[in-house]
Amino acid sequence: MKRTICAVITARASYARIKSALAAIRDHPDLTLRIVVAGSAVLERYGDIRAQMHADGFEIAAWTTFIVEGENLVSSVKSTGLGLIEMGTVLDRMAPDAVISVADRYETLATAVAASYMNIPLVHVQGGEVTGSIDEKVRHAVTKLADLHLTATAKAAERVIRMGEDPARVHVTGCPSIDLAAKVAGSPALDFDPMAKYGGVGTPLDMKQGYVVVLQHPVTTEYETSRRNVTETLQAVADLGLPALWFWPNVDAGSDGTSKGIRTFRELHRPQNIRFFKNMAPEDFLRLLCNSRMLVGNSSVGIRECSFLGVPVVNVGSRQAGRERGGNVHDTDYVREDILAAMRRILSSPRPEKSTLYGDGRAGVRMAGLLATEPLVTEKKLPY
Amino acid sequence: MKRTICAVITARASYARIKSALAAIRDHPDLTLRIVVAGSAVLERYGDIRAQMHADGFEIAAWTTFIVEGENLVSSVKSTGLGLIEMGTVLDRMAPDAVISVADRYETLATAVAASYMNIPLVHVQGGEVTGSIDEKVRHAVTKLADLHLTATAKAAERVIRMGEDPARVHVTGCPSIDLAAKVAGSPALDFDPMAKYGGVGTPLDMKQGYVVVLQHPVTTEYETSRRNVTETLQAVADLGLPALWFWPNVDAGSDGTSKGIRTFRELHRPQNIRFFKNMAPEDFLRLLCNSRMLVGNSSVGIRECSFLGVPVVNVGSRQAGRERGGNVHDTDYVREDILAAMRRILSSPRPEKSTLYGDGRAGVRMAGLLATEPLVTEKKLPY
Amino acid sequence: MKRTICAVITARASYARIKSALAAIRDHPDLTLRIVVAGSAVLERYGDIRAQMHADGFEIAAWTTFIVEGENLVSSVKSTGLGLIEMGTVLDRMAPDAVISVADRYETLATAVAASYMNIPLVHVQGGEVTGSIDEKVRHAVTKLADLHLTATAKAAERVIRMGEDPARVHVTGCPSIDLAAKVAGSPALDFDPMAKYGGVGTPLDMKQGYVVVLQHPVTTEYETSRRNVTETLQAVADLGLPALWFWPNVDAGSDGTSKGIRTFRELHRPQNIRFFKNMAPEDFLRLLCNSRMLVGNSSVGIRECSFLGVPVVNVGSRQAGRERGGNVHDTDYVREDILAAMRRILSSPRPEKSTLYGDGRAGVRMAGLLATEPLVTEKKLPY
Amino acid sequence: MKRTICAVITARASYARIKSALAAIRDHPDLTLRIVVAGSAVLERYGDIRAQMHADGFEIAAWTTFIVEGENLVSSVKSTGLGLIEMGTVLDRMAPDAVISVADRYETLATAVAASYMNIPLVHVQGGEVTGSIDEKVRHAVTKLADLHLTATAKAAERVIRMGEDPARVHVTGCPSIDLAAKVAGSPALDFDPMAKYGGVGTPLDMKQGYVVVLQHPVTTEYETSRRNVTETLQAVADLGLPALWFWPNVDAGSDGTSKGIRTFRELHRPQNIRFFKNMAPEDFLRLLCNSRMLVGNSSVGIRECSFLGVPVVNVGSRQAGRERGGNVHDTDYVREDILAAMRRILSSPRPEKSTLYGDGRAGVRMAGLLATEPLVTEKKLPY
Repeated sequence: MKRTICAVITARASYARIKSALAAIRDHPDLTLRIVVAGSAVLERYGDIRAQMHADGFEIAAWTTFIVEGENLVSSVKSTGLGLIEMGTVLDRMAPDAVISVADRYETLATAVAASYMNIPLVHVQGGEVTGSIDEKVRHAVTKLADLHLTATAKAAERVIRMGEDPARVHVTGCPSIDLAAKVAGSPALDFDPMAKYGGVGTPLDMKQGYVVVLQHPVTTEYETSRRNVTETLQAVADLGLPALWFWPNVDAGSDGTSKGIRTFRELHRPQNIRFFKNMAPEDFLRLLCNSRMLVGNSSVGIRECSFLGVPVVNVGSRQAGRERGGNVHDTDYVREDILAAMRRILSSPRPEKSTLYGDGRAGVRMAGLLATEPLVTEKKLPY
Repeated sequence: MKRTICAVITARASYARIKSALAAIRDHPDLTLRIVVAGSAVLERYGDIRAQMHADGFEIAAWTTFIVEGENLVSSVKSTGLGLIEMGTVLDRMAPDAVISVADRYETLATAVAASYMNIPLVHVQGGEVTGSIDEKVRHAVTKLADLHLTATAKAAERVIRMGEDPARVHVTGCPSIDLAAKVAGSPALDFDPMAKYGGVGTPLDMKQGYVVVLQHPVTTEYETSRRNVTETLQAVADLGLPALWFWPNVDAGSDGTSKGIRTFRELHRPQNIRFFKNMAPEDFLRLLCNSRMLVGNSSVGIRECSFLGVPVVNVGSRQAGRERGGNVHDTDYVREDILAAMRRILSSPRPEKSTLYGDGRAGVRMAGLLATEPLVTEKKLPY
Repeated sequence: MKRTICAVITARASYARIKSALAAIRDHPDLTLRIVVAGSAVLERYGDIRAQMHADGFEIAAWTTFIVEGENLVSSVKSTGLGLIEMGTVLDRMAPDAVISVADRYETLATAVAASYMNIPLVHVQGGEVTGSIDEKVRHAVTKLADLHLTATAKAAERVIRMGEDPARVHVTGCPSIDLAAKVAGSPALDFDPMAKYGGVGTPLDMKQGYVVVLQHPVTTEYETSRRNVTETLQAVADLGLPALWFWPNVDAGSDGTSKGIRTFRELHRPQNIRFFKNMAPEDFLRLLCNSRMLVGNSSVGIRECSFLGVPVVNVGSRQAGRERGGNVHDTDYVREDILAAMRRILSSPRPEKSTLYGDGRAGVRMAGLLATEPLVTEKKLPY
Repeated sequence: MKRTICAVITARASYARIKSALAAIRDHPDLTLRIVVAGSAVLERYGDIRAQMHADGFEIAAWTTFIVEGENLVSSVKSTGLGLIEMGTVLDRMAPDAVISVADRYETLATAVAASYMNIPLVHVQGGEVTGSIDEKVRHAVTKLADLHLTATAKAAERVIRMGEDPARVHVTGCPSIDLAAKVAGSPALDFDPMAKYGGVGTPLDMKQGYVVVLQHPVTTEYETSRRNVTETLQAVADLGLPALWFWPNVDAGSDGTSKGIRTFRELHRPQNIRFFKNMAPEDFLRLLCNSRMLVGNSSVGIRECSFLGVPVVNVGSRQAGRERGGNVHDTDYVREDILAAMRRILSSPRPEKSTLYGDGRAGVRMAGLLATEPLVTEKKLPY
């Protein structure tokens, strides 16, 4: 009998990351894929991903919104609570054989808790990574609730095992985000005009002389300073002068601080070299990165996909602290001058080596195979 | 400045267990105690504990109910979601310096997630224990969210550290439930008549020739069999013939199965040697245990307090599997004949030795001291 | 194009009442029926109705539980809040052309508010009746949210119009509960053995010499006295001595008081002429009524179906106060002696006349016809 | 014994409207005021009002956020559900003698339902008005749940009575918003510089030659067209050329459409005569109105306060349709040319007469008096 695998997608970024695995599950003869789109992933404000999923050939089994508004941290608590209630109802009706939870966003915990409490085997993708901040706590808490672990790196698998998980239930699949990067790396030419295809707001850019891409998320535990942080990067990018494509962040406890910072900066400085985008098809985004001079910000894309693609990265602040990284990453603080100096250093250096640290491009297929064959059980115990 | 410590009590049993620590925090010159009573602890059906807390000299800062009805597991998911929402509001108003979360019930995770997401330092009591079942997952997930760990045993502390927690933030305090047991052990005479003081339903018992105490909780992951399980124990206890004081279980996914089993057995068999009780002051319960021939069931009281008190225990089923135990515990399956045999073996054996495995009676004072002096931080990272 | 009609069933009693309308909608060529089973109607404790609905040939489009436990009134508030959240998600996915909300239970308001806020035309069945208590408030509040009103009586329709509703949107259909009664009245012989078919607990009854049926719900605004009230009726029924089939009440703020009263009375008095039932197929229940000597309690069945069937009723307390009634109803207070006197008066009087006050047996078909043809709009304004 | 009166404020606009009543309750010797700030009123995005309330001398007893994000109408359903849950907990702890619910916003229903279900007498302010749209439904549903009605006009009181409310429980107090207007009317000089005191964004304005004020809310049932509607007004105001102070709307199902419309218009047209403000102290706002050439938009301020103050109003669209109005109001559709024509007509006409249609300036004191003396009961029944 086919196994029904439920994948819960709670953010635009998670979809991009897991897409190749979704496709491999959908196409596997022994698996039935059921996708739940939830949280900010169904909100237009953060880029409703449902239309794109349909275009990508995925059916959506259920969707639900549960993001509670608020400028302080209590809203992430209430969102997660509401998410739990909604996911309980969804999983009760769907009764899948396993639930996949991706990574470490705060809503992820809603999926993980719902599945665990309902005795549905929980599969955790991207456990065992080290980053600090609340994400770190969420990620390892999900590990302790999960029954099957599919990690991006060998080091991450080792950490999951050291935390007490049964080595037989831990598999290094690579990160599925690299699968897409591998596909794009096969034909990396920029075959579209970002402004023509996606609009964006701000000055039209002349990208012929090279450009940078910026993607900076608020950092949950540093809420108060979200606005200041984004302003430092804005100033550095404005000062650099190269055309910049700036991507709007996900919803998060500090996103209003970040949004406010961006809006205020635009009002005051009207930067002529920055254009703001809300959303982009993942392939297009990766192709844009391939052809860029560098990525600036604090996204995990800089650590993962850019490592595989050999794109240089100015990684700002603590959000990716502790993650394994290739030689393409230049770390810096949220300090205008430091960010600017790192960008200039990259412009005057040779392109970095490509790396398979986070995967070889076959993670999705590997995951589907494991989901079809691994025993799905929910009982476990610390071995020590 | 005094530190404000918020303790969240979600079940009658948790209150009994943590009471000495609450008193020590309340009485500590550098601490302010704020108690939140939540979940089943404010429901009359499971024994509303607020009156007793007032009688014990504790003020209640806030209370909230959030148990969603249901015979299947989805209700525990929704209860936890509702609990998260309510705890978010409570903690937002209270703004404590630290939150204490006790043990491993499913609602515990609501407190732990709320505090973590709001950057309030989380103190976990009774982490690092091994039991199997959903409790095990919840307990270790809370460990990964917690910032300060106060464990019952040295072995538990070692496990918490092996899971990646900073040894500097892990302290062996002993279990505060032993504090009360230590106090009772000082004057163990049964100074009250359980039927006169607490009523109960069923046949009046003649306790002079000795009696047994029974406390059997439903086991979440074995929901379907809750009813059968309790019936096996009921039959064994009825067959033994000794007077038995049977205590009603806590709310849980399977409690309706357990309740149904008890009600049906009473209808059909009208056991003459069993009387059913809903609730009892913790001191009275411990004194009752001290003077009993044995405890039967699957409560952790059999593992902890009874070990310290030297009371023999028939521990039924897997609920306490994996917990460290003294020589007082006789394990058996949910099989009528096995339970009966274990009870008879105890009746014909000498009284077991007392043990300080779970504490020396000073856990509460130790905890208060640590809460007053330990650094309260929320940032952490895996060390490996 | 067919209209999709969503019917939300939140209680066992509501299903019985609306069943003929559901069947007529299902069978109408221009309508598609989508049923949501919610609240206590999916809880085994109150009689999960899903299996019976399947047996009756209905598909269930979605289900959700949201009853929050509690002995005081706050639980009905939280249940309704949770119901709103769940119904929002359900209606968002289903996107029906109209939503049917039945009567006046507190959860009904969740359906009504969800549909109104989402601009989905709301159809209210059984508005315009007068009963006092919180039900009265809920019923009229739903009227003010509803867009199409299908009332049981002409008097009810007049009241709905006087409250400011457009006469063009108010139709007297009769109560669909009468449809089933009309069907049963066609062949009223008791063709089953209640104990053989439904079990029940308590003394086996010899029903050959005649019997009474009892159905007494707790009254929300009289929570504190629920237990006392049920005890009065229990004593009266025990004193009468005729065999009695007693039906367990629905969930409600006071149901624990009622349950407690029943349990305690059984413990203390072990009444030999009362047997307790949890649930019964509606046809069987009506056939049981047809053949009974009388109905005792405070159910609306006594006012509606029994009026049509000509079954005498001892109607206890204020729950049905203000409802139009036929000559079959004898009102009394929650006083043992009064209830007993009313029952004896009925036993010595001739059988009452049948009445079509609440319908002629064609309400369901009429409703389906209106749903297929009436304009479905959501905008309205007070005419005065 | 003093009566405890709980007032729930869920929006900035409601606070302004009810403020004089809050002050009168606070200062009444027989009343204790307990304020709950909830919903959008605690969100910075819509203007957190807590600091201003403190500055106005009010203590805040509790606060809670419960606005769920979303661009479609389901978010208002979920917000209300979450609001019910939160209000249940708040009222359970506070146990007031009466709860005041203001007007007709969708969250208002959460307060009304919570109080009704908990048998706490509900006082409704501003019932009986006619406006169309979902507000109309909410307002009358609250009337049917409420136990004491304090209306703004005699006509509104008549409507409440015709809907079936007991005339003895309906009082015409006038609208408390007029109290503040009466105070401001006593010394109407513009004694502050709006840009210096409140900032705002956009072109600095020279207000010496006269100015207009704009306040346009999205209309819930016209969600899809929110953006188009606001654009029409923006174009008309830009074309008029007079300096305009534009106030940001409240949160609502369509507010993102409105916000988007404003942002896009600013990007494209950079209007030189419009400056955007987020929030203003109510007195300052009224003083600004007094000195303006007119108010443009769809706010009830145009109907109420401007009638008393004799300020001309271009009332756009259906939001205030059906409300009683003075001679100061010029109705128009969401059509650029019509709005412009109405504005020009006002500029060339004499100032309208002042009216006491909505009150004489003593509503707050009257309300406090009634709250202190009226019987507080929760039982009611339709009289017809």
